[in-house]
Amino acid sequence: MSAHDKAFQDYYPDDYSQCYGCGRLNQNGLHIKSFWDGEDSVCRFEPKPYHIALPGFVYGGLIASLFDCHGTGTATAVKYHQEKRIMGTDPPIRYVTASLQVDYLAPTPINVPLELRGKATEIKDRKVTVSMSLYADGQKCARGKVVAVKMPENMMKKIK
Amino acid sequence: MSAHDKAFQDYYPDDYSQCYGCGRLNQNGLHIKSFWDGEDSVCRFEPKPYHIALPGFVYGGLIASLFDCHGTGTATAVKYHQEKRIMGTDPPIRYVTASLQVDYLAPTPINVPLELRGKATEIKDRKVTVSMSLYADGQKCARGKVVAVKMPENMMKKIK
Repeated sequence: MSAHDKAFQDYYPDDYSQCYGCGRLNQNGLHIKSFWDGEDSVCRFEPKPYHIALPGFVYGGLIASLFDCHGTGTATAVKYHQEKRIMGTDPPIRYVTASLQVDYLAPTPINVPLELRGKATEIKDRKVTVSMSLYADGQKCARGKVVAVKMPENMMKKIK
Repeated sequence: MSAHDKAFQDYYPDDYSQCYGCGRLNQNGLHIKSFWDGEDSVCRFEPKPYHIALPGFVYGGLIASLFDCHGTGTATAVKYHQEKRIMGTDPPIRYVTASLQVDYLAPTPINVPLELRGKATEIKDRKVTVSMSLYADGQKCARGKVVAVKMPENMMKKIK
């Protein structure tokens, strides 16, 4: 499998792969996956029929979850790229969400392909800002921004 | 059952009770429920063991979902209250989320009681802003803000 076939989140070490949103080892999770597509990061997702706010429309909390994991995944990938390192190599780089902003621009229809596109709009040592848009069948329905920060020590300690 | 025993969301008409976050008729949903507690709205929630970001910590997307449904529920209850109407009476008042902001202040431990407290900080005719905090076992772990707007016509039409 080439690097381009594997999602950003699938490079996370096992201990960091339990996330309900994007962890490959969380059997009940959403399995959100992000990839490079040129300069952008992209995530395609198919909600379950019950992921609705109202009949016919995607639940806003699910959209927030997509932005959350696509945002931190993009931050991690961008940082590896900036350091000219292959994703997943040690020492691991792992970002968590410090803040999340979602603007719901239009009701998001369910039963059509959803695509998120993201870009790092600010890169600092410990902080990466990722700006994203969500498209439903090509129509822009939401805008999201994640400020991702390197994982705090007290989280890392409890995992190891 | 007195009005105080029933959650805000449980007053929503059947057609609006399918929400994955808070709909009483969504069998796969989270069943987020909000109540009055004095001047504040309060929501208590017990995540499932798999609702984690990392072992031991609650998933940020779940926290965003809690703020989302507690925010729109509070907006609805506040508006009924302001109009001196009993919740659930016709014509129905129903708010959706226009924007959601979450600041993750500290990792939120799992396996302790979670409580959200909210307050409407701006009330206009079509727009209510709700500011909220999330406490884990009394410790403030996140801050959330929802700008809720009256449901757009194109959503209402598709439901009826």
